[in-house]
Amino acid sequence: MTNPWEEKFSKRTAWMKSSFIRELLKVTNQPDVISFGGGFPAGELFPVERVKEACEKILTENPQKALQYSTTEGYDPLRQYLVDDYRSRGVNIGLQNIQITGGSQQALDFIGRIFVNEGDKLLVESPTYLGALQAWNAYGPEYVTVETDDDGMQVDKIEAIIKEHDPRFIYVLPNFHNPMGVSMSIERRKQLVEISHKYNLPIVEDDPYGKLIFEGEMLPSIAKLDCQFRKGVDNFEGNVIHTSTFSKILAPGLRIGWAIGPEEVIKKMVQAKQGADLQCSTFDQYIAYELVAGDWLPDHIELIKRVYKERRDAMLQAFEDFMPEGTTWTTPAGGLFLWLRLPEGCDSLELFPKAVEQRVAYVPGVPFYPIDGPRNTMRLNFSASDPEKIREGVRRISVMAKNALAGK
Amino acid sequence: MTNPWEEKFSKRTAWMKSSFIRELLKVTNQPDVISFGGGFPAGELFPVERVKEACEKILTENPQKALQYSTTEGYDPLRQYLVDDYRSRGVNIGLQNIQITGGSQQALDFIGRIFVNEGDKLLVESPTYLGALQAWNAYGPEYVTVETDDDGMQVDKIEAIIKEHDPRFIYVLPNFHNPMGVSMSIERRKQLVEISHKYNLPIVEDDPYGKLIFEGEMLPSIAKLDCQFRKGVDNFEGNVIHTSTFSKILAPGLRIGWAIGPEEVIKKMVQAKQGADLQCSTFDQYIAYELVAGDWLPDHIELIKRVYKERRDAMLQAFEDFMPEGTTWTTPAGGLFLWLRLPEGCDSLELFPKAVEQRVAYVPGVPFYPIDGPRNTMRLNFSASDPEKIREGVRRISVMAKNALAGK
Repeated sequence: MTNPWEEKFSKRTAWMKSSFIRELLKVTNQPDVISFGGGFPAGELFPVERVKEACEKILTENPQKALQYSTTEGYDPLRQYLVDDYRSRGVNIGLQNIQITGGSQQALDFIGRIFVNEGDKLLVESPTYLGALQAWNAYGPEYVTVETDDDGMQVDKIEAIIKEHDPRFIYVLPNFHNPMGVSMSIERRKQLVEISHKYNLPIVEDDPYGKLIFEGEMLPSIAKLDCQFRKGVDNFEGNVIHTSTFSKILAPGLRIGWAIGPEEVIKKMVQAKQGADLQCSTFDQYIAYELVAGDWLPDHIELIKRVYKERRDAMLQAFEDFMPEGTTWTTPAGGLFLWLRLPEGCDSLELFPKAVEQRVAYVPGVPFYPIDGPRNTMRLNFSASDPEKIREGVRRISVMAKNALAGK
Repeated sequence: MTNPWEEKFSKRTAWMKSSFIRELLKVTNQPDVISFGGGFPAGELFPVERVKEACEKILTENPQKALQYSTTEGYDPLRQYLVDDYRSRGVNIGLQNIQITGGSQQALDFIGRIFVNEGDKLLVESPTYLGALQAWNAYGPEYVTVETDDDGMQVDKIEAIIKEHDPRFIYVLPNFHNPMGVSMSIERRKQLVEISHKYNLPIVEDDPYGKLIFEGEMLPSIAKLDCQFRKGVDNFEGNVIHTSTFSKILAPGLRIGWAIGPEEVIKKMVQAKQGADLQCSTFDQYIAYELVAGDWLPDHIELIKRVYKERRDAMLQAFEDFMPEGTTWTTPAGGLFLWLRLPEGCDSLELFPKAVEQRVAYVPGVPFYPIDGPRNTMRLNFSASDPEKIREGVRRISVMAKNALAGK
């Protein structure tokens, strides 16, 4: 049957696609499937009692404001917390530089809305965050890509690309990259900021996982390096737009993220937000503020890091023990994901149904490549399963891979 | 100082404007200003204890799911509640016809996203809901308008407009219209559905206030009439896309609204939502479900209606007692707003600073006209102030108007 609505839809709907991941979640929700597919934080670590206390407090002390309409920019005490937190990390922002958004996903949508005309080129990593592509596809860009390796985006290659393609902005995930789990070296970060200033080109820095570092030194954000490049000028009127979220350190169900940017960019974000949905949930913003205002948060983040590191280690060990020769993988120093490369000839997308037969799920690498890329890759999440399940899940993937290699 | 970002922004940013209302809220938040400007429901009626019980229950019984990522379409029990509620009112929907959105504002944004190409024409009322214009402006439409009078949209004029302009859809607020407070007659509703089928043209029915009816008979929704027109076929594959919200019967701070539409439209909405912000707050959806699942809700709605009717009556009485001759107004049978027309020659936009001097605020009519309209009109909200304040606020407006008429 034909779809009588097809001819009524805008042409932009042809560019919009369903997220492979969110579609996959529907398939793999059965309880006997071990899923490394989603990007779920560990639910058993959610600070449930703290959320309960926060709700009780808010609904006792300030219910009429917490349940009412509020400003588009976001709840001021929450924004002020972010100002203080970023300033303590060398990012010279003020209230005028912050827009609260529906997760960092909505910040990405607004970046598309305010920067991208149909046919504009965007310089993105290959592979990169699928959700960013999905947000921006609605605005009709073309992607130009630069490869990302174990030290992050290959920044030495981007000047030539900029000269050839004149992109609108550069999009980069410097910390515990989604999907690869890798981090960008300090040298490359500095070089990226220099190039950005040389070509007067905005950088979109997407940093949902930065605080979840298990080992090694926390590297300065691109936002901080941009402030430093401008000789410590006490403002945020540089080239960086930075996005992040409470989803990974508090709880994603609250949908509280943010964008940080120069004042003129944030003004446009506010207009975008007014048209898009007026504001984020007032109540959830109050809850997030109560949570981050508590002095227990650093300990809570330490707990998450300890648990995720254990899970990452379980996954790495299981690779060593089970995966067939020729398999390689990244070793993330933080975050939720790693990147597995099966031996040549294994197509992770084609193999996906066989994985589901084995009752295990992953995300094939293909949708993360804006244009094209190797087909033997997959993204694995290690935050949402305990070590035992991780070991068993990897074993199942190894069975699938070995069968494939044996031509079964 | 020039704005160095200007040249970097997309051309769509030139179409986006700040909402007069949301900017005005910043000016009129001082406690001694009586504000009829916002669209705030009465905060003192929020079901705070019920919200508290809901939070306690959810966070005790199901915290890991309520704080985790969830499906883009929305929380199934909440969607099922809506299915049952609409079916009980003759609207033959199923789960596949509902997308939960960030207030009904986000549903309007998605309608723009999936239907509007730059330069497309949209047939809207004059005046109409400012927020719809703001949502759609980002997609670059042109507006063609039909006047709305005390019986709603002048449907008898739209065939000629459709033939001339070939609009993408017709946008209508049939119940307690924002800004006018008027409702569309049953004859016009039926005629609108007939025309929609004759020209195979979608109707966007925006109904945030329908349940807040103070007097008279609740008229059938356009969605119901469309089902009837199709001879009671038990599906929702007609011409109507319907939007609504819990903001006015529960609390707007939760940001839970929805769109109802044919399955193919909802599929596109889901894709739009995935790119825009993945999903609404899981926690707020759980709260909303706990609230609507309670058998206290009908009594709560009766309470809101009783209080708002009292406030409307106070406003109407104050008009009678204070306003200068030549002032006219609408008499809404429900909702939150009414529409005041000052005597000829009074320009409500020009007078706004004088109103603020008198410590009273309203929304001038001008921004509600998609193209142009009389300048003596204003929208007044009666839900957010008690009768005494309403009387005093109207008195202040009357002073301002009388001064203006006297040339002061």
